[in-house]
Amino acid sequence: MSASGAEEQGIGAGSVIRRNADGEYECVADEVAIEEPLEIRIGQVPLAVTMRTPGNDEELAAGFLLSEGIVRARGDLREIARCTLPASVGNVLNVTLATTAKFTPAAAHRFGTISTSCGLCGKTSIEFIRQQFPPIDFTTSLQIEAAKLLELPERLRSAQGNFERTGGIHAAAIFDVLGNLVVLREDIGRHNAVDKAIGRAFLDELLPLKNHIMIVSGRSSLEIVQKALAAGIAIVAAVSAPSTLAVNFARESNQTLIGFLRPPTFNVYSHIERVYME
Amino acid sequence: MSASGAEEQGIGAGSVIRRNADGEYECVADEVAIEEPLEIRIGQVPLAVTMRTPGNDEELAAGFLLSEGIVRARGDLREIARCTLPASVGNVLNVTLATTAKFTPAAAHRFGTISTSCGLCGKTSIEFIRQQFPPIDFTTSLQIEAAKLLELPERLRSAQGNFERTGGIHAAAIFDVLGNLVVLREDIGRHNAVDKAIGRAFLDELLPLKNHIMIVSGRSSLEIVQKALAAGIAIVAAVSAPSTLAVNFARESNQTLIGFLRPPTFNVYSHIERVYME
Repeated sequence: MSASGAEEQGIGAGSVIRRNADGEYECVADEVAIEEPLEIRIGQVPLAVTMRTPGNDEELAAGFLLSEGIVRARGDLREIARCTLPASVGNVLNVTLATTAKFTPAAAHRFGTISTSCGLCGKTSIEFIRQQFPPIDFTTSLQIEAAKLLELPERLRSAQGNFERTGGIHAAAIFDVLGNLVVLREDIGRHNAVDKAIGRAFLDELLPLKNHIMIVSGRSSLEIVQKALAAGIAIVAAVSAPSTLAVNFARESNQTLIGFLRPPTFNVYSHIERVYME
Repeated sequence: MSASGAEEQGIGAGSVIRRNADGEYECVADEVAIEEPLEIRIGQVPLAVTMRTPGNDEELAAGFLLSEGIVRARGDLREIARCTLPASVGNVLNVTLATTAKFTPAAAHRFGTISTSCGLCGKTSIEFIRQQFPPIDFTTSLQIEAAKLLELPERLRSAQGNFERTGGIHAAAIFDVLGNLVVLREDIGRHNAVDKAIGRAFLDELLPLKNHIMIVSGRSSLEIVQKALAAGIAIVAAVSAPSTLAVNFARESNQTLIGFLRPPTFNVYSHIERVYME
């Protein structure tokens, strides 16, 4: 971890006391992943606060609104503006929706209520979310070659700058099935990294991502697979383990879920038909 | 990952297609960490929903209420009961507070509002939380020997059953400064594992944990250090990286924050005076 005079995007520089292998202590320069709150407002009404690594905040907001079903098409989003009041210190974004988005504060309240009622049981929760986003079309013939899949973790790592420096950053990347990188984003929160990546694709009007795969550096829980579905992504791969709810959701929504993608091995939890055997 | 006929606590059993190192595919038994929503109600009014691994739910609720400042002493909590309606499928807990807790639904609303206003800036957020919980008393002389500290990751791992089986479970443990394990809890969510561990200690009336250290298997973000403070824990150690906000919070609240605790080395981010040099 190199010394850095200026604070670079997403990384805070400072000093730390390090206990070395020989038992000696020394004071060394250190870099730590920045965590700060971001408040997302719609029409100046607070909608959500997320603890995130600053940077690409507009993408984060776009991806969040997409995965919550508040925006569906690029045209639903008129403007994302940073609040300029000094007290906001760059941590408040105000979103202006187009009338096509048909969003009202009352709907935001309903959204909150629905989140809560998902607490009744996992099945209800899954059914609600699937109702929000239809399953991937069963007639699509998308496939990825196993050899390509096995190349992705290394491509992810080589494109990822901040993890090696801080050890505290998650990454989410979208590749096409030929292995070309479309977008990679890093954040202290896994779900934020995913929101930023799909938010970028949404802002660039690339959705639905019909020929793409999303890869995340850590584990895959329900929200990761659900956000991928919101962007139309049929193949999700994670370097670590999935949760039961992620597996069930992927099976029901016709998504291929890959876990423990650690070359030369991986696990396929759902819809293996999209993995092209060598 | 061994085959398991019955579903054990926190682990779901199923089959997975595994791509082996030789390029062959086989269908093998697999164990996946369970993720399900838990709704916490106070007086039947929904307060929060968390995605957690089932098990030790009463501890989770107690730890959550403690770290949100809703209960302060064991006597504030009259009862935690599981909702018996079939639709709740065991995922709803109703908490009855004693009158000493002085909690009203209006206060819950205020809490929600304060969460949102934390979005204004990290400083405001930190100041609010510290106001909730005073810093650790600066006159305490608590220390931990570096050699004891270095033993903890191995003690954590050997006491942790589910991670090795699923690869998807976080752990939080509380040890005394002599290295004796008080409680260890696992959950798919890091913050839930912490809530369960401090919730157990709260229910057993062990708070404040004046001579203890908390260790988490992953990274330390703000919420981890804040929850430790709610339980009166002065020393927090993590196997991985901290965030900037966790470091700043620990410095201000007089907590010792240790990161990258990977024997024979570790980093001390704040209040090194509590680490007893060998």
